[in-house]
Amino acid sequence: MADAAASLEALRSRLAVIADLSQALALMRWDQSTMMPRGGAAGRAGALSSLERLRHERLVDPALADLVAELEGASLGGDDAALVRETRRDVERAAKQPADLVARRARASSLGREAWQQARADADFALFAPHLREHVELAREMAAALDGEAEPYDVLHDGYERGSTAAAVEATFAPLRASLVELVGAIRESGGTCDTSPVLQSFDEAGQERFALEVATLFGYDLHRGRLDRTVHPFASRIGRGDVRITTRYDPHDLRNAIFAIWHEAGHGMYEQGLPDAYAGTPLGTYASLGVHESQSRLWENLVGRSLAFWEWGFERLRAVFPGQLDDVPVERFHAAVNAVTPSFIRVEADEVTYHLHVMARFELEQGLIDGSLDVDDLPAAWNERYEAYLGVTPPDDRVGCLQDVHWSEGGIGYFPTYTLGTLLSVQLWEAMQRDLGDLDEALRRGEFGGISSWLHDRIHSQGRRFTPAELVERATGGPLACDPFLRYAWAKYGALYGF
Amino acid sequence: MADAAASLEALRSRLAVIADLSQALALMRWDQSTMMPRGGAAGRAGALSSLERLRHERLVDPALADLVAELEGASLGGDDAALVRETRRDVERAAKQPADLVARRARASSLGREAWQQARADADFALFAPHLREHVELAREMAAALDGEAEPYDVLHDGYERGSTAAAVEATFAPLRASLVELVGAIRESGGTCDTSPVLQSFDEAGQERFALEVATLFGYDLHRGRLDRTVHPFASRIGRGDVRITTRYDPHDLRNAIFAIWHEAGHGMYEQGLPDAYAGTPLGTYASLGVHESQSRLWENLVGRSLAFWEWGFERLRAVFPGQLDDVPVERFHAAVNAVTPSFIRVEADEVTYHLHVMARFELEQGLIDGSLDVDDLPAAWNERYEAYLGVTPPDDRVGCLQDVHWSEGGIGYFPTYTLGTLLSVQLWEAMQRDLGDLDEALRRGEFGGISSWLHDRIHSQGRRFTPAELVERATGGPLACDPFLRYAWAKYGALYGF
Repeated sequence: MADAAASLEALRSRLAVIADLSQALALMRWDQSTMMPRGGAAGRAGALSSLERLRHERLVDPALADLVAELEGASLGGDDAALVRETRRDVERAAKQPADLVARRARASSLGREAWQQARADADFALFAPHLREHVELAREMAAALDGEAEPYDVLHDGYERGSTAAAVEATFAPLRASLVELVGAIRESGGTCDTSPVLQSFDEAGQERFALEVATLFGYDLHRGRLDRTVHPFASRIGRGDVRITTRYDPHDLRNAIFAIWHEAGHGMYEQGLPDAYAGTPLGTYASLGVHESQSRLWENLVGRSLAFWEWGFERLRAVFPGQLDDVPVERFHAAVNAVTPSFIRVEADEVTYHLHVMARFELEQGLIDGSLDVDDLPAAWNERYEAYLGVTPPDDRVGCLQDVHWSEGGIGYFPTYTLGTLLSVQLWEAMQRDLGDLDEALRRGEFGGISSWLHDRIHSQGRRFTPAELVERATGGPLACDPFLRYAWAKYGALYGF
Repeated sequence: MADAAASLEALRSRLAVIADLSQALALMRWDQSTMMPRGGAAGRAGALSSLERLRHERLVDPALADLVAELEGASLGGDDAALVRETRRDVERAAKQPADLVARRARASSLGREAWQQARADADFALFAPHLREHVELAREMAAALDGEAEPYDVLHDGYERGSTAAAVEATFAPLRASLVELVGAIRESGGTCDTSPVLQSFDEAGQERFALEVATLFGYDLHRGRLDRTVHPFASRIGRGDVRITTRYDPHDLRNAIFAIWHEAGHGMYEQGLPDAYAGTPLGTYASLGVHESQSRLWENLVGRSLAFWEWGFERLRAVFPGQLDDVPVERFHAAVNAVTPSFIRVEADEVTYHLHVMARFELEQGLIDGSLDVDDLPAAWNERYEAYLGVTPPDDRVGCLQDVHWSEGGIGYFPTYTLGTLLSVQLWEAMQRDLGDLDEALRRGEFGGISSWLHDRIHSQGRRFTPAELVERATGGPLACDPFLRYAWAKYGALYGF
């Protein structure tokens, strides 16, 4: 046992260096999106590539694998066993990826993100196309390295949502799609409208930030261990222990964009801030999957932030920040305004109903890119066709079309389905929480968020990567991932709002 | 020759990885001072320590030493020979420092800086004392590792100013001190005063920044490859190629602090932005010494920024930024206000005459800390005694006393003399420039800074580390470092201002 303790200590010390490299990498990426002068782009791409290579070297160091093998023979239990098991998984995954591929992907990711920012600003897909082409090739190369037998898209998707496959996603998406299309139809046929004029005034950006950030801290996002900045595309990023940052963008003429983005990212941020400190710097101290991550962000954004009960508490605060602008708006009308269902161009600004059609469109398009049935040059046209088919709208340019999201620009292919999977899970978590805590609306009406955040902390955040995503979902909700709870929620909520 | 070319390429490729780690380290340090939430401090200290260790490992990698040895035998000439020579120097210096010491110093530097920020805010030296004690011990340990025969302070100082010693500094400081004490006396006895009321109004911080930063870009500081942020203590930092950042602080009631700090740091920034791109990522692409670095910052801050000719151009611009506040002030009176000689507490805000007494006080105190004649606990008292003796003022608390500068908090001991050495050099460079370019005042009066910045770029910036500091000074000015030019300049300038 003394030997096992020493070996565990040695293992954690090796993992800490890898985590320290991850901290540097996360900071360099955060900085690239928020602070870095543009002249630093080429140098940054090189440094990211170098550090990814060094991190990979450390992960595939035979001394680390030897420690893992030794500890596997030591009959450890509990978290120690989980730590060894999860380290084995990361080491094996790294070992399958050639160092050179890791370095090339890091460089392409950095240069792709830079090119995308420009392409998006100019609404010029041609600037970005060569980068996307390289990403598709690198993604195929990586999928082949990780598992030459499996479908490449499945391998990529598994990197974000462990244990999931395109077929499993489609099995979930099919009934969801059918029911959502029906729901959109019911909303349209209801003849009802949600008047969005209250949220479409001019709103001072500093006021938007003050309101949304204060509420986020009341949810539980800790600014002593976090901060909020501006970016082209909102994100949350764990830099290191005690340092989890979020970003947003502001629309001075639409109150919804920044505040829901801030609450969404704060949900991610609370997950990262709540990961077990005792396992910080090890695989066990990281999140379970991106689907689980999205369940946290979507829960605060939607189940809390778009609920009537929440606004019954929060609307007075909002009114106080924008004196004179919302005084004559009843809270029910404001709640309707932030829940208006309108087919639109931008995923992160979409309502809860049409949101998933945005995700499904990307899911299909990225499968096409990977299996070769869709050429990169044909992406803008295919995107627009899909939007016409699913949402009945055609983006006027690629800025609000296929250039809107950051993910592909960094080589993130196979990620998008996790947004919908996470949303489904968020409603399952909400139902489970209601069973444990009683009427959550009552708490929301009093502005009491501590019960919700504690429940999530205990069931999800503090678990780190102890369990597989499927196990974690089962333990937290009592069942497997399912779309019924979300559909029940959506039909009830929007039926009430649109009167059917 | 083909072999030598391949080995040179291999050498540069190894050096590039080291430079990439330096980029990560520089960014983590910049972030710690500007952006990092305080909760990240412990995690950041650990990561800095890890990455310094990794950087050190790469520097002492036998494969790098082998490449250097091989290339030394290859009869290279010109810059290639200089590159090999400077790499040899860095490798040997690294090899003398145990990896563990490097890691401990990095951690202590990060934690010390964090503690110093708090101690300074609270004016509580006791919070910082244990960190300073550790720095003194680590500095002695490092000096012993680098050269067990030499005086420890000399070894530390040489790390900042290659080839310099405490004795050499003192040989320069002695006549300087005597003449400056005489000059301060002459100013006092002149009965003249420079009215500072024009600069002691309330000045909007955004206006201060707009004015100073715009002028800095006209000097030549490139914001495409840089940015300006706020910190407790102003600094300039090269993050990487194409990314050189500066920071400042603002005093809403004293116009001088931020604008001269910004021009000072922009001077550093221009040096780093002007280093030879062809040697970026190698020792040859770095600065010659900190004294040379300070010559660049002090030149723009003082020779340009505190000159009458400059303000004859710039004052109108400043007036336009603060309408109504300076309209009735003649430019001569404004020039006098920014050159008022007043013994004061804060080095970075001191006038050109008393500035060096601040530096000399630190030079003596840090020698005492290293040779053991001054205990850390006695520093505040010793500091205050020295200020009374040199400047005739006693700091009311340690915030404006021995806690004012960031350097010791990071373990930077032996650095301070370079501020005065650099100032002396700045005047020598100015005189040499006048010989080459003619009357610089004429250019300043027209707001033409391109001649000055080009001259500095050619003679200093673009030379990187091709030459030793002494060689570089000789080549740029035609002679060795000397204090006479500065003293001539100071006596003439302040004689005219104070009428003697």
